[in-house]
Order: sequence, then structure tokens, then C-alpha cells
Amino acid sequence: MISDDEFITHKDVPGPTKEEIRCLVMCKSRVSPDDIVVDIGCGTGGLTLEFAKRSRLVYAVDKNLDALNTTEKNLKKHNLDKKVHFIHSDALEALKDIETFDILMIGGSGGDLPLLIEEGYQKLTQNGKIVVTSILLETPVEAVETMKKFQMDIDIVDVSISKGRIMKRGTMMLARNPITIVTGKKN
Amino acid sequence: MISDDEFITHKDVPGPTKEEIRCLVMCKSRVSPDDIVVDIGCGTGGLTLEFAKRSRLVYAVDKNLDALNTTEKNLKKHNLDKKVHFIHSDALEALKDIETFDILMIGGSGGDLPLLIEEGYQKLTQNGKIVVTSILLETPVEAVETMKKFQMDIDIVDVSISKGRIMKRGTMMLARNPITIVTGKKN
Amino acid sequence: MISDDEFITHKDVPGPTKEEIRCLVMCKSRVSPDDIVVDIGCGTGGLTLEFAKRSRLVYAVDKNLDALNTTEKNLKKHNLDKKVHFIHSDALEALKDIETFDILMIGGSGGDLPLLIEEGYQKLTQNGKIVVTSILLETPVEAVETMKKFQMDIDIVDVSISKGRIMKRGTMMLARNPITIVTGKKN
Amino acid sequence: MISDDEFITHKDVPGPTKEEIRCLVMCKSRVSPDDIVVDIGCGTGGLTLEFAKRSRLVYAVDKNLDALNTTEKNLKKHNLDKKVHFIHSDALEALKDIETFDILMIGGSGGDLPLLIEEGYQKLTQNGKIVVTSILLETPVEAVETMKKFQMDIDIVDVSISKGRIMKRGTMMLARNPITIVTGKKN
Repeated sequence: MISDDEFITHKDVPGPTKEEIRCLVMCKSRVSPDDIVVDIGCGTGGLTLEFAKRSRLVYAVDKNLDALNTTEKNLKKHNLDKKVHFIHSDALEALKDIETFDILMIGGSGGDLPLLIEEGYQKLTQNGKIVVTSILLETPVEAVETMKKFQMDIDIVDVSISKGRIMKRGTMMLARNPITIVTGKKN
Repeated sequence: MISDDEFITHKDVPGPTKEEIRCLVMCKSRVSPDDIVVDIGCGTGGLTLEFAKRSRLVYAVDKNLDALNTTEKNLKKHNLDKKVHFIHSDALEALKDIETFDILMIGGSGGDLPLLIEEGYQKLTQNGKIVVTSILLETPVEAVETMKKFQMDIDIVDVSISKGRIMKRGTMMLARNPITIVTGKKN
Repeated sequence: MISDDEFITHKDVPGPTKEEIRCLVMCKSRVSPDDIVVDIGCGTGGLTLEFAKRSRLVYAVDKNLDALNTTEKNLKKHNLDKKVHFIHSDALEALKDIETFDILMIGGSGGDLPLLIEEGYQKLTQNGKIVVTSILLETPVEAVETMKKFQMDIDIVDVSISKGRIMKRGTMMLARNPITIVTGKKN
Repeated sequence: MISDDEFITHKDVPGPTKEEIRCLVMCKSRVSPDDIVVDIGCGTGGLTLEFAKRSRLVYAVDKNLDALNTTEKNLKKHNLDKKVHFIHSDALEALKDIETFDILMIGGSGGDLPLLIEEGYQKLTQNGKIVVTSILLETPVEAVETMKKFQMDIDIVDVSISKGRIMKRGTMMLARNPITIVTGKKN
């Protein structure tokens, strides 16, 4: 895992996804060296870089140009940019233009999550995964409902992490916002 | 419960203790109208006010004068100041000067928690409670170890609360730092 | 608060709601001595008893007769049965037969939560509260969406509690399932 | 990650460590193909197998012979046994007999955690890691205090995971016990 503080950030771009969540997403996606990955809402590139290290090819999609630029800077910093195609577009449009993939990562859906999962499911290889991360109450419910329609194998984890900060008077535990990770596997 | 945003705050004074934690501390302390309460580290007065509403008398102790003043302002705002004695002093010194009490609330111990519990235990009435709240990893361990020495009945809860914020795109869940509440009952 | 282990239980009846959650529900509902409360899905009676101690009248509703009997036993054990009316019925039917109330507690909705909130809202007094507790991912989303339609003031907390068990080798922290409490106030 | 249900278990042996925690421990340890790992308290072998997949050599230590046998069975099932040495011994004794290592994993310490960390620290390579996982309140405090003495870089995360179970009436969120992971890096 790349440390959180090694990422170049941009004031108008969210992220990077924290180390522990990147770690869990890599595990849940079961990413392997031959995989093609689509990373919707790449933001700062936290997940993009981790996928790039472990897969064959990553499509990084964001409608925010600052996000794509920031992701590119971070990829270059770690010599991972060769493996990544950038798509400056709406997520659903982007998906329509890609032929097939093994992993669809959805970190920011802009409201059309069910459509994204439906479109993504069609293009997913056998045993492929759709991974949805969210800090909203509504998103995991939408993800589960849509994945159910396609009889995907669904794994749902809600992750609450507190991080210790060592101070003179003791170790203060600081909470991170809870993240729900929904993973659907195509059967 | 008084709402969090009804409290007058001061830039150099921590608190108020969030509504949900105040609520749980009231339950754990089993405070009743005849009780005398000592509130160590009263801060903004969050717990002081809740105890004042439910008990006979509260000693509010803080070595920070701004804290005592802020607590007093909040008590006056809710017409609860008649029930509270203010002690501007080190916690251990303050405890030595009070004869007896039914509840000892320790929200900030400045490093001498075992001594505070030992001194407090001596002056606690039968079935009296010592309640320790903490955001540090070390404090609950110290509290449990000291309470064990006196064969107190010990209840330990670690409370993680996320609060929903309704936004246009959904309900964002924002984490509060986890709080550990250790309650010892004198047998 | 009544301790969890003071409740009479029944093998086919869920509950009682744990002490900490009962405590938080009492705080969130702002129950006061003049209030009329409807408790949908009373189960073992955990919340019923706490409401009965703090309000004027409680309607305990359950379609499971064992639940009503268990709730009644627990009320009698604590001399609180005089304050409670029992309704053996489907929740929505029960609501239609009650004229007005200050607090509607929904702990188990059997799938028609939006209808229950809609019906309940009509009969709720000004500043009255609807409190929905849930261990399901879907329920809080439904609750929030329905309450939004009526422009209720909505408070959402997700509560994760771990309880310490003191053993020879240390204090083991045992997790309780997370509970989401959604509270809507009628404006 | 190997799925939790792929492990052979034994009634007297704890584990396997759940997938998500194995995943986070792998990330925190920064294990790499040249590493030598010591796994204290290997139990069912959950972490042993993950380390074996990612390192050069693992010493699996347990004083419970059933644990070593179970770990061996699981390693054989996944063709990973060639990389693992088994040590049936007290943890501290075992450490004394191993010359050097890059990662010391302590999952069960039997009360002499500070001694284990002290002994382990001496034999750890530069930038080596000591990882301590615990479900006890006391263990992370001991770990942090001992690691501080050696000026290790310390990372502390408290991880609470709830897992969704899809049922007819919705997705029930079931809590796992919280785990604290303390990682010290030798400078």
C-alpha cells in the first residue's frame, strides 16, 4: 500500500481513499495481473494506483478534469502511468465505450448507480466483480438491490476505523467516517 | 437532553459532551433526585447540566477558570445554577475537600486517574458509581484496573456513533470519535 | 434504565432492546410525563417499560401474541402494566384505530414502514416524534425518505457498541450489532 | 485473500482470523517476497497462509499442538507448507531460537507481550515490523508502551466491521468484534 501522505492532492478533488479502505477494496476485488479494471470517479487516484500496481490495464474515469490531472500526477510519481487510460467523461458514457473488463470500481456515481451497475454487469467477464464504496446511507441499498436483480454473489461490509494519535497524555483514537463496501461477483 | 447547539461555548474549553454520550452517562450513572454528584473536569458543562437536572447537588470541578465560567453561563441559561457548587481546583485536591457523594464523574483526569478513583471510592456512598469517559486508549485500562482492586462491579462500553447529514445527493454518515465509558459500582 | 437481565424473555420473541439503545431511544424521543406513546412491535417489552415509566399512556402493539404476553409479564414485574394498552394486531390496522399520540416508536415494521410513517404522521401531535430503530440496511433509508416528504426534522444516528467482558487474561470487547435510530419531529 | 470458509477448523483452536483483518494485517506489515516472518500464535493458520503466499519463509509458533496441526493441514490444502517451519513451543522460547526476521506477527501473547516485543525488536531487521492484533482492551496499550521505548514508528487502528447478511426482509448488519492492530516499525 502507498501511504496516504505520499499522494499529491488538489483542493477541488476528493481523496485519496485512505490506506485501510484501499487495502480492503484490493482484497474484495480479488484483482490479479491479467485483469482489466474500470475505476469510476478516480478522484485523487488512490484506488487507481493500487489497481495499476496489480492489474494489466486500468481505465480511470472522472468528469472532473482536475481529478484526472491529479490522478495522472500520482501515477507518474510512482511510474504507473503506462498502465492507465484516462477518460474525461460522464461515467455511464465512459462505460458504453469500453468493451469488456474484469473489475468495475464505482467510488462516486453521481446518482445513476443502478444504471452503472446494469451497464457494467453486461460487460463484465465471468467471475468479474463490481465494487461499490460509499459514505452515504442510500448507496449500499441501491447497490444491493441492483446486484440482486442479476443474481450476483453479494458481499457487504461496513468498515469503521479509528486511528490512534500518540500524544503526551495518551493515545487519542480519532474516528474515520464509516465506509460501506458492496462487492458483487458475476456468476 | 439539552441539544448540543444550545450550549454556550468557549474557544479554550472542550465540549460540550455530545448529546448521545450525555444520555448514556446519565443512564449508566443511575442518577436520582437525592444524589450528590461530583463532576471532575466539567468543561463546557454538558454533563454538569444534565446531572443538575436529575440530582440534588453537583460539585463542578475544573482547574481551568474559563471552563467554570462557561459551565456557569450554561447553568444560568437553563436555570440550573442554584444546584451547583463550583470548585476551581486540581481534581484530587477538590475530592479531598468533599465529604461524601453518590456519583463521581471523571471526564478529564490529567494523568492521576488511579489516585482519583482511589480517593473517590473512599467517599462514595454504598451503591455509588464512578463513571469514567475517555477518548484515550490508556484511560479505560487504568480505570478498570483500579476499580478491580476495590471489587467494584464494572461495566465497560465502547460507543461509536455516526451522525447522518442529509444532503442533496444522500445522507452522509459522519463519524464521531469513539468514547469508552467505564462505570464502577461500589458494593 | 432497567438492566437487560431483569427482563423475562420468551424463545419466540425478540429482545429486550439492549440497555444502551433503550437509553438513546428515550433521549431521542424526548418523552415526557404527559405523552401518549404508540410502541409498534413491542417484542419483549424493553422499550414499552421505559416509555411506561416516563409517559402517560403506552399502546403496545404486536401481531405476535407471545410478544404481548411477554411484555405484559415484564410490565407487571415492574408495576407498570396500568399504563399500557395492549393491541394484538397488524401495526397499520392498530394505528388506524388510535386517535392521536405524541410519540410513535417503530421497532419492527414488517415491510410497510412508509405506510406506517404516513399514517402515523397524520395522527402525531405538533412536535411529536416518530422513532425508527433498525438493524437492516434498508430501513433507515426508507424512514428518511418518507420523513423528508413531510418536511419532518430528521435526526439519524448509527450506534455501534462493544461491551467489555472482564476475564482473567484481560477485558475482551464484544460487539453488539449496529443499530440505526432515525427520529423525525413533526413541525 | 483466502475465503474464511475455505479453512479447515478445529474445535480447540481459535480462528481463522477473518478475511478483512488478514487483509489489513498484510497491508500493515508491508510483507514482500524476500521477507522472513515469525507468526506467534498461529492458531488455525489464517495469517500464516497469507504470509506464506507473500514471503520467503514463515515460522509458525504455537504452544497448542492442535493449532500447529490445523495450520499444517490448511497450508497443505493450499500448497503452501514448503515455506513454513513449525515450532511447538512457548512464544518467548521460540523467539530466542530464531536468529533474525523482517516481520514479527503477534496474535496471541499469553500475557508476556512486552517481553515478546523486547526480544523481537532485537532480532528485527532494519525497517522490520512488529504487528500486534488484539480483541482485549489491555493489549494495544501494552504494545504501544513497549514500542515507544524503542522509538519505533507506531501505527494504531481500531477496526470495527459489520457484515451484511441478505435475508428476505432486508440486509441485516452483523457486527464482528472490534480488533485493534498496532504496527511498530524499527527505525
